[in-house]
Amino acid sequence: MPYINIKVTDEGVTPDQKLALIKGATQLMVDVLDKNPATTIVVIDEVNTDNWGIGYDQVTSLRKK
Amino acid sequence: MPYINIKVTDEGVTPDQKLALIKGATQLMVDVLDKNPATTIVVIDEVNTDNWGIGYDQVTSLRKK
Amino acid sequence: MPYINIKVTDEGVTPDQKLALIKGATQLMVDVLDKNPATTIVVIDEVNTDNWGIGYDQVTSLRKK
Amino acid sequence: MPYINIKVTDEGVTPDQKLALIKGATQLMVDVLDKNPATTIVVIDEVNTDNWGIGYDQVTSLRKK
Amino acid sequence: MPYINIKVTDEGVTPDQKLALIKGATQLMVDVLDKNPATTIVVIDEVNTDNWGIGYDQVTSLRKK
Amino acid sequence: MPYINIKVTDEGVTPDQKLALIKGATQLMVDVLDKNPATTIVVIDEVNTDNWGIGYDQVTSLRKK
Repeated sequence: MPYINIKVTDEGVTPDQKLALIKGATQLMVDVLDKNPATTIVVIDEVNTDNWGIGYDQVTSLRKK
Repeated sequence: MPYINIKVTDEGVTPDQKLALIKGATQLMVDVLDKNPATTIVVIDEVNTDNWGIGYDQVTSLRKK
Repeated sequence: MPYINIKVTDEGVTPDQKLALIKGATQLMVDVLDKNPATTIVVIDEVNTDNWGIGYDQVTSLRKK
Repeated sequence: MPYINIKVTDEGVTPDQKLALIKGATQLMVDVLDKNPATTIVVIDEVNTDNWGIGYDQVTSLRKK
Repeated sequence: MPYINIKVTDEGVTPDQKLALIKGATQLMVDVLDKNPATTIVVIDEVNTDNWGIGYDQVTSLRKK
Repeated sequence: MPYINIKVTDEGVTPDQKLALIKGATQLMVDVLDKNPATTIVVIDEVNTDNWGIGYDQVTSLRKK
C-alpha cells in the first residue's frame, strides 16, 4: 500500500530508467517493510531545470557552470 | 480551506471530467467537514503512464496486456 | 489507480468523517473516470492550525477572530 | 535541508520570476530558521488552469469572468 | 538533487527500517540515474491507519479482517 | 491562489517562526507573481529527524556528528 513519489530534474530520463526506478522502489518496500507490491504505487515527476532550485540557483544555471 | 491533490494517469481526461472532479471533491469537503468551498483548492496532476508504477510495472505496459 | 491526498486542518476530524472522505473520494474516481476502486488510494493529512496559513495569517489566529 | 514546493497556475511564469521565487524561498529559510541554503531545495509546479479548482470552479472559467 | 517522498502507514516502522529506506532510495538514484547522493533527500511520512484508504476502506478496518 | 508546502525537520520551530514563514512565503507570491494573498495557502510540515534523510543518512545521526 505504500506510495512513493520520486522527483527528479527533466534531463532525459529514459523509459527503461523509469522502469528501474519503479522496480527498485517497490522492491525496497517489500525488502524493508514486507509490503505488498501489488498495491505499491510509484509516481515519478520530471521537473524542468528552470523550476528546480538548490543553493539559491536554478539547475539550468548550475548545469552551465 | 482544504487542499485536495488528485493524481491520475494522463489518459485523455477531458476538461469536463476535470470540472466534475473539482466540483465533487469540493462538495465532499462541504458535506463531510462543513468547509468553506470558496477557499477549497483542488489540483489535478496528470501523470504519463511511463511515470506511474504499480506492482513493479509501468502503467504503459499494463495497458498493453 | 488514482492517488488522492486531502489536507485539512487538525480540528477534530472523527474516524467516521475520515471514512466518509475516503468513500466519497474513491467513488468520485469511479463515477467520473471509471477507475478501479480496489487500487484507489486516499491519504488524509491533518495539519496543526499553527502550520496552516491563508491570507498571511495562521488558522490558529483566524479561529480566534 | 528544507524542501519547498510552490504550486501556481501555468500562466506565463518567466524564468526570471522562477529564479526570484527560488531565491526568495531559500532566503526565507535562512532568515527565519537559519537553514543551510546549499541544501535547500525549491521545486515549482506550474499547473494547467483546467486542472486547478477553487470555489467549485476551474481557474480557466474564472479567468474569463 | 532528487527528492523522494515515501508514504507508509504508521504501524511500527523502526528507526533502523527508516534508515534502510533512506539508504535504499538514495542508492537507487545513484545506480539508475547517476545522481549525487550528497544532495539526495528522502522524506518518510507515517500515516495513521484511520487516514489511509484503499478500496473504499480505512486500513484500520482492513487490518481487523 | 498559490499553494506552498514547506517541509522542515521537527526541531523546535516556534509558532512565531511559523507565522514568519507563512507571511514571507505569501509576500513572495505577491511580490514576484502579483498573486492574491487572500487565497494563498501555506502548509508547513515538520518531519521527525529519523524520517528525513540526506546523503544516505538520517538527520538524527547527522546532528550527533
